[in-house]
Amino acid sequence: LDYQHVQVPFEITLWIMLASLAKIGFHLYNKLPSVVPESCLLIFVGLIMGGIIYGLNDRSPPVMDTDIFFLYLLPPIVLDAGYFMPSRPFFENIGTILLYAVVGTIWNVFGIGFSLYGICQVKAFRLQDVSLLHNLLFGSLIAAVDPVAVLAVFEEIHVNEKLHILVFGESLLNDAVTVVLYKLFRSFCEMPTIKSVDIFAGVGKFFVVGLGGVLVGLTFGLTAAFTTRFTKDIRVIEPLFVFLYSYLSYLTAEMFHLSGIVAIIACAMGMKRYVEANISLKSHTTVKYFMKMWSSVSDTLIFIFLGVSTIGENHEWNWPYICFTVIFCLVWRALGVLVLTFFVNRFHVNTITGKDQFIIAYGGLRGAICFSLVFLLPDFHRKKLFIAATTVVILFTVFIQGMTIRPLVDLLAVKRKRESAPTVGEQIHIRFLDHLLAGIEDISGHWGQYYWKDKLEYFNSKYLQKILLREHDQPKSSIVLLYEKLERKHAIELAEAGQLGHAPSHPSLLRSGRLCSNNARTAIMDQKLEDTLNPDVLENIQEILARNLYRIRRTGPAYNRHTLPGETEPVEHAKEILMLRHRSL
Amino acid sequence: LDYQHVQVPFEITLWIMLASLAKIGFHLYNKLPSVVPESCLLIFVGLIMGGIIYGLNDRSPPVMDTDIFFLYLLPPIVLDAGYFMPSRPFFENIGTILLYAVVGTIWNVFGIGFSLYGICQVKAFRLQDVSLLHNLLFGSLIAAVDPVAVLAVFEEIHVNEKLHILVFGESLLNDAVTVVLYKLFRSFCEMPTIKSVDIFAGVGKFFVVGLGGVLVGLTFGLTAAFTTRFTKDIRVIEPLFVFLYSYLSYLTAEMFHLSGIVAIIACAMGMKRYVEANISLKSHTTVKYFMKMWSSVSDTLIFIFLGVSTIGENHEWNWPYICFTVIFCLVWRALGVLVLTFFVNRFHVNTITGKDQFIIAYGGLRGAICFSLVFLLPDFHRKKLFIAATTVVILFTVFIQGMTIRPLVDLLAVKRKRESAPTVGEQIHIRFLDHLLAGIEDISGHWGQYYWKDKLEYFNSKYLQKILLREHDQPKSSIVLLYEKLERKHAIELAEAGQLGHAPSHPSLLRSGRLCSNNARTAIMDQKLEDTLNPDVLENIQEILARNLYRIRRTGPAYNRHTLPGETEPVEHAKEILMLRHRSL
Repeated sequence: LDYQHVQVPFEITLWIMLASLAKIGFHLYNKLPSVVPESCLLIFVGLIMGGIIYGLNDRSPPVMDTDIFFLYLLPPIVLDAGYFMPSRPFFENIGTILLYAVVGTIWNVFGIGFSLYGICQVKAFRLQDVSLLHNLLFGSLIAAVDPVAVLAVFEEIHVNEKLHILVFGESLLNDAVTVVLYKLFRSFCEMPTIKSVDIFAGVGKFFVVGLGGVLVGLTFGLTAAFTTRFTKDIRVIEPLFVFLYSYLSYLTAEMFHLSGIVAIIACAMGMKRYVEANISLKSHTTVKYFMKMWSSVSDTLIFIFLGVSTIGENHEWNWPYICFTVIFCLVWRALGVLVLTFFVNRFHVNTITGKDQFIIAYGGLRGAICFSLVFLLPDFHRKKLFIAATTVVILFTVFIQGMTIRPLVDLLAVKRKRESAPTVGEQIHIRFLDHLLAGIEDISGHWGQYYWKDKLEYFNSKYLQKILLREHDQPKSSIVLLYEKLERKHAIELAEAGQLGHAPSHPSLLRSGRLCSNNARTAIMDQKLEDTLNPDVLENIQEILARNLYRIRRTGPAYNRHTLPGETEPVEHAKEILMLRHRSL
Repeated sequence: LDYQHVQVPFEITLWIMLASLAKIGFHLYNKLPSVVPESCLLIFVGLIMGGIIYGLNDRSPPVMDTDIFFLYLLPPIVLDAGYFMPSRPFFENIGTILLYAVVGTIWNVFGIGFSLYGICQVKAFRLQDVSLLHNLLFGSLIAAVDPVAVLAVFEEIHVNEKLHILVFGESLLNDAVTVVLYKLFRSFCEMPTIKSVDIFAGVGKFFVVGLGGVLVGLTFGLTAAFTTRFTKDIRVIEPLFVFLYSYLSYLTAEMFHLSGIVAIIACAMGMKRYVEANISLKSHTTVKYFMKMWSSVSDTLIFIFLGVSTIGENHEWNWPYICFTVIFCLVWRALGVLVLTFFVNRFHVNTITGKDQFIIAYGGLRGAICFSLVFLLPDFHRKKLFIAATTVVILFTVFIQGMTIRPLVDLLAVKRKRESAPTVGEQIHIRFLDHLLAGIEDISGHWGQYYWKDKLEYFNSKYLQKILLREHDQPKSSIVLLYEKLERKHAIELAEAGQLGHAPSHPSLLRSGRLCSNNARTAIMDQKLEDTLNPDVLENIQEILARNLYRIRRTGPAYNRHTLPGETEPVEHAKEILMLRHRSL
């Protein structure tokens, strides 16, 4: 037996296997995941495993390695989040998100830091040796909302898109602020005196870290798009580039002490559009599937490790400090959301309601990022107290808030995600309004989001597409695409109907038929429109389209100066379409 | 700048990126890969990179780490090979393959070892200090044909299936022999005296290592199949299990000093059938795509590293030893193939021709496995000589043999892979003959391959399928599946034909149409039949099927005692099918 030799890959594989099997286990009992969020179940599994390891070895189980977390577990989750980010609501609310992420986080850091320092002054609590700087440092790591925890809970409760993007966007973008503040306070802790220059430098760093991340991300994203122009002959390595470039953007940003999370999101959002157009359909399925798979595994491992690491002797218990930390985290977040939303609502027509504000404040979950940062703290005599407080805050937010947020959403009747997607009519209207508003903004001289969006789109189609896309022909109108898709779907249904009358294995045919039409759908359009139509509406649309598009075709290329357009009746058209089909039989 | 922190993942990502970009580079010039095999080009890139590193640092570039090779680079390639192994020709020729792999390899090892020992006795060559055991040890590592090198070359020259599986199967299965002989001689080198018991133990080990590998592989493979029974609710982690279990089988086998390659092949071949039936179509696309991608990247990295590692000061040059090594490798392999084929041909009707024998002998390429093994040798004063000889043999086989094998195949007019796949008729006949032969074998009491195949199939459908498959309904006849597929394809074509008459963007429609029908094809049958029919044959078949299957349907469930079966004319049938379709309009 030679275990030493294979130990590293063997143990990694076993951990991933454990995580995957745990996931299967939860889903075998359908009731469990609908009550308790998966993140809680996974932490629970981790706690049990940690307890077993502790019991057997009689020493603390290994703590989640900070490097493993930041270099290997976090990037897949963020990449997945960035790649599947709904870009429209994100950019529509970018101002609000940035306000929450930057000002909100700073508010929380200083609020929590100063008020904990106040608590430390109470002699009865025996905390006088915790300095203000240490409290602020602790505040900077405990204040940030965690994207992994937020995603795990919010994906299950299906609140409306705007609410979701506000909380989730904040949790992603506050990374830049957290990185800067955390490093700033950590270096202050080690400095003998702090000059005002240092503080100004810290403020300047915000912009460098955030914008630098965006720049690094976009550079790699566009390079990735450019690379996929040349992969036509070796389709099989196409998905690789998506992963390699995103990961490189993350690592490069981390290397220069920029925000890796911001970089990888910018990279994913920047490349998505072009890569999708360049790579083959199967490559794209693989990319999407593998991204989801990787992020799901990472996410599972993170929560299990979180549970395992909680067990042990790393903690110093101090009731007042820990309780007040939890309270301050809740109170300052609530206050921050209230104040910031007050300002946001003054400048927006589409305001954030009181219920929404409550969910935003309540959804501020803490997770593995805090946990990793607290272990990265330089050694000082109260580090174990900070670890204990962080652990309690994470467990409190994930378990108590995570488990109660779903009932609360039900109770408050918070506006949910709409079940049926927008119809074609709505989509056309939205696009029409976008153009209209861009025009109005242009005339009125007010350069708002529509103006910039229009300019960006122009720049994209004029320059970027020509460089980054392999085939940059005119994009087809989405309505023509829809018509093609419906025609094809109908044809397949017809083919099956011809069989179904007497075919031996009815249900299996139906099943494969559904499969096929699903595939045909994916094949033809991979756009927003695609998975957004319900069958009733579809039939309606098809009828209208069949009539109108047919007429367009007739009046278009087949123009004849001896006949008037639209002379034939709709019924005639339908007949003629039928005839066309028969002829090809 | 904090490079230290991200160094490991950053450099790994960069190496993979380099490998992928090199691959893209070759394919941009279509002529290059058609003359020079990709493996040669990649080694060449590696040589250049090694030269640059050597020139800049003025010391030998890092040598490919043996652990990295055996633990991370080799498994994906072998997994891919095992998963896509054409099982019919493999099992039909298993006897011949095993003979080549076991007896052939032993023959080569002892042939090369003893004759090199003979060379060492010539005083003028100054090699008297190389003992017989060291020569045999060297023989054991240089004798084995390398699956990675063979695959890289044989995938491009398209020889007939039998020839391909003979060379490739041998290169995979000789791993067990190589492992045993290599470890045996290595331990003999360190022993003071060798008893005859040790030699017998060595012979026994063959069976343990080989059969143990198969056992470990099958265990993990069937466990994987069983696990995928329960993944219905979390499709997204399905592909993971395929990779995790295969990798675990490899690591477990290596841990117990069994043959990891044999284990992973047994695992892949064992699980494939059941996993495919259990997991979703998209998961399966992802599995296939990712396997190909991973193996392609591993393969690329191996050849580049091979090139890089060649440069440097690890070599001791001795003309006679190195030249005679190359000559003996060629001669003993040729002799071995001749002798073994003589015996094989006496027992087979379908003989191996002289041309085939030449290609089998000539296709015995050496590669990265030898290279890794030679670096694993215990330190002794002539190790650098062995390294030099191994490097030369590898470069000789990959460059000279790899580049000339294609012209030779053309020149000799070796039977190629048939362009068009077997027709439905052929397939039905093959299956019919299988059943017939199984019956004959059963009656005559001769338990040959058909008898065992039949028994295995029975055991599979009676027990294994019930345990391992989620839905174990009667499998549909492949001819019914084909009919469904053709009907659907035709329907899609019809739908497009209706548009093509006047539609504005003809070529783009055609393109998307092709896409869709490709998808529909994949959707419906993922079997051998699928990508094996050319369009002319297809139409023909469809006509016949349409008529006949329709009649079967009529005479089947719609049986009526007042009419005779087959009363209506074929033309009537076609009409009736048409009517059925119209009604559903």
